[in-house]
Amino acid sequence: MTTIELPRGATLWLTGLPSAGKTTLANALAAAVAPSGRAVEILDGDAVRPVLSPELGYSRADRDANVARIGWVASRLARNGVLVIAAVVSPFAEARDKVGAVHAEAGAAFLEVHVATPLDVCAERDVKGLYARQRDGKLAGLTGVDDEYEPPLAPALRLDTAQSTVDQSVQALIELLGKESVL
Amino acid sequence: MTTIELPRGATLWLTGLPSAGKTTLANALAAAVAPSGRAVEILDGDAVRPVLSPELGYSRADRDANVARIGWVASRLARNGVLVIAAVVSPFAEARDKVGAVHAEAGAAFLEVHVATPLDVCAERDVKGLYARQRDGKLAGLTGVDDEYEPPLAPALRLDTAQSTVDQSVQALIELLGKESVL
Repeated sequence: MTTIELPRGATLWLTGLPSAGKTTLANALAAAVAPSGRAVEILDGDAVRPVLSPELGYSRADRDANVARIGWVASRLARNGVLVIAAVVSPFAEARDKVGAVHAEAGAAFLEVHVATPLDVCAERDVKGLYARQRDGKLAGLTGVDDEYEPPLAPALRLDTAQSTVDQSVQALIELLGKESVL
Repeated sequence: MTTIELPRGATLWLTGLPSAGKTTLANALAAAVAPSGRAVEILDGDAVRPVLSPELGYSRADRDANVARIGWVASRLARNGVLVIAAVVSPFAEARDKVGAVHAEAGAAFLEVHVATPLDVCAERDVKGLYARQRDGKLAGLTGVDDEYEPPLAPALRLDTAQSTVDQSVQALIELLGKESVL
């Protein structure tokens, strides 16, 4: 057995409205970091939910439970030197704070990033057609429209993807990770 | 950013009856590997269940769903260079095989280890008092007694903890990991 020095793991937690650009930024950041060989794992809320939380719906309790599960997985990865990029709507501050506490307990860094794209821009993009379905009365409980979104009060970074390019946002994230000694 | 070479991750999946010695071996192996600085994560069924699967019970479907969730988490860790030691009863072969398939898909090694301690020895140890409760009629569906356990047909390793010391078993696991280029 040789002695290995682990890089500093961290979870970059991207929170924001549907279509704010969380998944786009997660993928672009992962692609930018990939050439370094650094271990990176994307935990995308939409992709993880059917695996870990198929029985959960969209009530506050169910959303919070889903966030807690993803957060716990992120903490296990981050404390083993992985850079985790979580892209999860995670509308409630208390649930996000709990994920931060789980990371603190695990000795892993937790960096909350608010993808603060304005609602009208998100509704215009409407990547998954959720805003249209809500307008048509086919969907209730859409975060930011007829369900609550609590913006982080003191995120490590706030990005407005309507005001900056994907490249600029990725650069800001890389700077943050450098400042935090993760990259 | 510096270039990092990841070690080969893998999941060592310890399956066996309650009180077979899975958790003891997981802890002892993790302690033996720790000095190398190698990233190691124990996923213990009893510890993970309340976090990821609080709503699941002990029907076959629920057990399988719990195994699938732990297996998915293990695959994310293993593909990022972590040595995962899973200690999960995981009584059904099909569910274990699916975890193996998830690992193959993720490009991570999956090593199934049967902790094949005889039932009478497990019942004698009875670490959690499950066998006693079953005998007293206070518990139904105990794996190996009144619920099924399907032993792996072709595990990477089979350990009988009644026939060997913890140190001997750990040594056998370390040899397996060496052979598989994980350590």
